[in-house]
Amino acid sequence: MVFLKIKPECATCIVRQIVDVSIETTNNENKQFELIKKCLPIIEKEYHNNAVPAWMGTVVHRYFKKISNCNDPYKRLKIIADETAKQYIEIVKENMDNSNNKLEKLRKCILGTIAGNSIDFGPFSTMENIAPLINSTINGNLAIDHTEDLLNDLENQNIKNILYICDNAGEIVFDKLLINEIATYNKNITIAVKGEPILNDATMEDVKLLNLDKEYNVITTGTDAIGIIFKECSEEFLNIFNSCDLIIAKGMGNFESLTEYNLNNKKLYYILKAKCIPVAEYNGVNLKDNIMLSNLKLNE
Amino acid sequence: MVFLKIKPECATCIVRQIVDVSIETTNNENKQFELIKKCLPIIEKEYHNNAVPAWMGTVVHRYFKKISNCNDPYKRLKIIADETAKQYIEIVKENMDNSNNKLEKLRKCILGTIAGNSIDFGPFSTMENIAPLINSTINGNLAIDHTEDLLNDLENQNIKNILYICDNAGEIVFDKLLINEIATYNKNITIAVKGEPILNDATMEDVKLLNLDKEYNVITTGTDAIGIIFKECSEEFLNIFNSCDLIIAKGMGNFESLTEYNLNNKKLYYILKAKCIPVAEYNGVNLKDNIMLSNLKLNE
Repeated sequence: MVFLKIKPECATCIVRQIVDVSIETTNNENKQFELIKKCLPIIEKEYHNNAVPAWMGTVVHRYFKKISNCNDPYKRLKIIADETAKQYIEIVKENMDNSNNKLEKLRKCILGTIAGNSIDFGPFSTMENIAPLINSTINGNLAIDHTEDLLNDLENQNIKNILYICDNAGEIVFDKLLINEIATYNKNITIAVKGEPILNDATMEDVKLLNLDKEYNVITTGTDAIGIIFKECSEEFLNIFNSCDLIIAKGMGNFESLTEYNLNNKKLYYILKAKCIPVAEYNGVNLKDNIMLSNLKLNE
Repeated sequence: MVFLKIKPECATCIVRQIVDVSIETTNNENKQFELIKKCLPIIEKEYHNNAVPAWMGTVVHRYFKKISNCNDPYKRLKIIADETAKQYIEIVKENMDNSNNKLEKLRKCILGTIAGNSIDFGPFSTMENIAPLINSTINGNLAIDHTEDLLNDLENQNIKNILYICDNAGEIVFDKLLINEIATYNKNITIAVKGEPILNDATMEDVKLLNLDKEYNVITTGTDAIGIIFKECSEEFLNIFNSCDLIIAKGMGNFESLTEYNLNNKKLYYILKAKCIPVAEYNGVNLKDNIMLSNLKLNE
């Protein structure tokens, strides 16, 4: 893993995100131009060959929230994401029910949560039709597949406390399935979402819509950072992160940011879709491949 | 025509162009980041709700040539464009030969030149496979079709001097067919290309590769501006532009820029593919539609 995580084309992606969210935030075209123009110097400042894309995105999207006077620009899209996700949930359940064994059931469930990870207005334009991608993911394969390691960990009774770090709204509809599946292994599960809205990331509000807070311990990272920035996280989050026996981190933002830290002594699984070429190349897989990666095998 | 020509998403497109050309210019990733980062403040300065995309592109691509110390960053791609174009030329000729009448023959030839207009690394990424688009254009239709007006003008013996303003390399392979067809109407034709390399636009060098300079009077605009900026043009170009009886202007750059001027008293035909949503919307057509538009009907 000697590649840079950021690639030259990340400039196009972050600008496209700001164009999309400007159009989402206001119908006034002059105002759209103004918002985009104001973000360009911030992008210029954050964009360099050592930047972490998720952290560059954090600064830029935070700035956008500030200048647009809108604390949750993706609110409408997050509701759409939830509705989209719910249309597919039965297919994932059916795939799980039709599995021959525990391993296959877990794998099908993970693929479902990666299908959910496809519903993302960061790497994909808000204009894109993602239905074909959701379908092909649910019924697809894992290009990197450490599901068996996870199954072993779940069956290990010494592993009791699990932290599940969510990524997007919509996606969490599928995450609920995996969290419920993990719960059957008699684990103590904490779910973490963002402390404030950023991009289309899941917040406490989104979790409550699914009643996840009624069944599990739900906390926030304590910040609106995309992915994880430890120095910004709440003490509550850090305590659970440090004390838990196993972590599942969803999506590219968590992958990009957590791999910046030395977590070699942590049992940590990254579950994501490689939604852009930089992340795909970094993992040695193809664009849109599905990844279920054990942190302990990162440097193999 | 009350729309702005520039749209918010032009920010994404111009950044993507700079990413593409940076990757084209050097294999050194650090250098790529540096080039892109240096261009961002120039883009920020030029990008506003009254900008003309072709002129914004002119400033940005000129700056890129300067900082990259490369006077012709698209040189390799222009050669590929020529080779690509040559693969399709026989199909256009066949379509012309199979036409039932002069009008249909002219239309088929115009569609060929619009297929050539598809070979463009401005609106389309250099990574895109454009073969399907070339094929569908050659055998497609004109969404705006003033071919009959052009035919009437060609048959009018009072119209003697024609100025043909080229757009891209590659495309000029097809343009040669249309120029030859126009020549059969006993016209005095001048061909104009760019004075210096910019983007993948055709220059004197490209014209010479096709021997067009042996058969016709070829001049340059006298500048490397994308499209036309009158105040930058050579006296030679301006004299011919002002004195000729009819102008054919190819591509989006010429369309975007020439429609900035009052040319209501000129017989001028725009021939282009609507390669992006802003240009499509401005003309009331769909993305990737083919346009053969008489200047005199612009405000109808």
